[in-house]
Amino acid sequence: MSTTFIMVGGEGPNSYQQHSKHQGALLEASKEKINEAISTKLDIDFTSGLISIADFGCSTGPNTFAAVQTVIDAVEHKYQKDIEFQVFFNDSSNNDFNTLFRTLPPARRYFATGVPGSFFGRVLPKNSYHVGVASFALHFVSKIPKGVRERHSPVWNKDIHCTGFSKEVANLYLDQYKIDVGSLLNARAQELVSGGLLLFLGHCLPNGVQMSETVNGMMIDIIGFSLNEIAKKGLIDQEKLDAFKLPVYLAHADELKRIIENNKCIRTEVFAKISHPKEEYQLDSDYLTLAFKVTVGGSVASYFGEDVMEKTYEIVREKTEELLPQIANAKPGMQYLTVLRKT
Amino acid sequence: MSTTFIMVGGEGPNSYQQHSKHQGALLEASKEKINEAISTKLDIDFTSGLISIADFGCSTGPNTFAAVQTVIDAVEHKYQKDIEFQVFFNDSSNNDFNTLFRTLPPARRYFATGVPGSFFGRVLPKNSYHVGVASFALHFVSKIPKGVRERHSPVWNKDIHCTGFSKEVANLYLDQYKIDVGSLLNARAQELVSGGLLLFLGHCLPNGVQMSETVNGMMIDIIGFSLNEIAKKGLIDQEKLDAFKLPVYLAHADELKRIIENNKCIRTEVFAKISHPKEEYQLDSDYLTLAFKVTVGGSVASYFGEDVMEKTYEIVREKTEELLPQIANAKPGMQYLTVLRKT
Repeated sequence: MSTTFIMVGGEGPNSYQQHSKHQGALLEASKEKINEAISTKLDIDFTSGLISIADFGCSTGPNTFAAVQTVIDAVEHKYQKDIEFQVFFNDSSNNDFNTLFRTLPPARRYFATGVPGSFFGRVLPKNSYHVGVASFALHFVSKIPKGVRERHSPVWNKDIHCTGFSKEVANLYLDQYKIDVGSLLNARAQELVSGGLLLFLGHCLPNGVQMSETVNGMMIDIIGFSLNEIAKKGLIDQEKLDAFKLPVYLAHADELKRIIENNKCIRTEVFAKISHPKEEYQLDSDYLTLAFKVTVGGSVASYFGEDVMEKTYEIVREKTEELLPQIANAKPGMQYLTVLRKT
Repeated sequence: MSTTFIMVGGEGPNSYQQHSKHQGALLEASKEKINEAISTKLDIDFTSGLISIADFGCSTGPNTFAAVQTVIDAVEHKYQKDIEFQVFFNDSSNNDFNTLFRTLPPARRYFATGVPGSFFGRVLPKNSYHVGVASFALHFVSKIPKGVRERHSPVWNKDIHCTGFSKEVANLYLDQYKIDVGSLLNARAQELVSGGLLLFLGHCLPNGVQMSETVNGMMIDIIGFSLNEIAKKGLIDQEKLDAFKLPVYLAHADELKRIIENNKCIRTEVFAKISHPKEEYQLDSDYLTLAFKVTVGGSVASYFGEDVMEKTYEIVREKTEELLPQIANAKPGMQYLTVLRKT
């Protein structure tokens, strides 16, 4: 049984849709740079009168709607003529597309389409869109590296994610990450028209900082701790927990840059650290618990069941409260915008 | 509160997905004519190496997968070169796209996309696909004509559908149908590339036959009768039932032909009656009840609630059993394939 990473669907109080403001703030802070990139770097032929935009890892909105609207506004401002827009919303086929479709902005001026499939591979035809966007999508691996989930393997990882403290484990994750992001970039480079742009927004680790020194890492460590408490109570099998690893790897900024530079079909136009007031999480245990419930909670629920997930997050809340002083002293992560152009 | 027409979603025992063989048989019987039309009438430029296919009113499969595969096979046979295929699966945004996406054929050789939105209007960019398909989609109206739902109106329809016995009511339905199918054809004509084909499969009434003389009409009359029984028992409000009308109109063959001929951007290449062994429903009350539950049942449930729907269909089963001799003598309907080409 492998671990999948699915945002919590629907529109309920615990859905990703209701609690993704943290992710949305990065887009807001990057707007000016996105406008500039589209204005100066996008260089496409659109005699057909159609411009297509794709968002990879769209989840259920509303961030994806804001991202594509930002691109559309910039394109309209640049070309100022009658253009039809088509938007491809991509996510895994387990994503809640029903919610996505039911909550599309009523006043949108584009044709909306959903594209189910893993963004590590091809999901659209060659030369089929002009601008691709992905927000918080470049921190996944398609599978857990060999040995990392196996309790008796020399590279078994006792934590539920790559904390950075075991160099061996981190290297295995990085190897897998290189393969996966390499495939992702290859796929996008084929799908994108020549002169088109890819805009990647997300978070990574500043060079030299380890995952468990950041709020992200600390919160995932707390989730791991809480699952262990649940196992101690006998509510889940310890062996099953030993094999539970999140398919997540936060690269260091330089690692990510190098992987991108390895793809010879695309050129890095921008790789910018984006700083903004909402970058850091609120230091509030309720807020932090919920923020990591709508993201990581889905994986916990799909592996251990909804009930265990709820019980785990009760402990997460308590532990977060207890560790707030440490969390307050976490090292900052890094948020970035990178703009790539197909040559 | 208006009546929507939604196929029952999911993959459960009472889902449309499990009980749409009746609809699938028409495609099977039309294959040869479809192959011939694609071989001799499709005349497109595809220097891009991409052929796009759209299915309108796709529901949750599996019929839509069979329909697009039929088109793909015919196109590959015709051009015999390396082509990428993209398929647009369209249905209303209330359709169960999650089920559609999760049940896509694993071995498909096309990029799948979902397109939410009413097919009475534009849902895709201009010139964006080469072959459009619609199966059992040309028997809907976008709304119930004015006066038909109102108990005290002179044109109130006491039945839940257009039986054909009141000429006045039938004319109102036909007027609305002309507007709706006119819009549908206009939208498709804009979206289709020049030289591309539209393939419409469905059922209509043979000229001179009235809806309530066919099995379809009789079964809907039985559903109407059963709802009235439920109202007599006080389980639903009679007034609410008086306003319940299905947004369905089965045109006569000549009416449909004329509406199509009114669109000057498309030319009718084929309008063929398709006869096949599975054309008629099995004369079995369980089979008939279920066949009209996965289609009409969704509308009953969304208007009156799931519970009322179940109770209604218990009566439908009994009444169908009782009326089997009459149903056996129903006048045959007509199934058709029409092939239209954008000039």
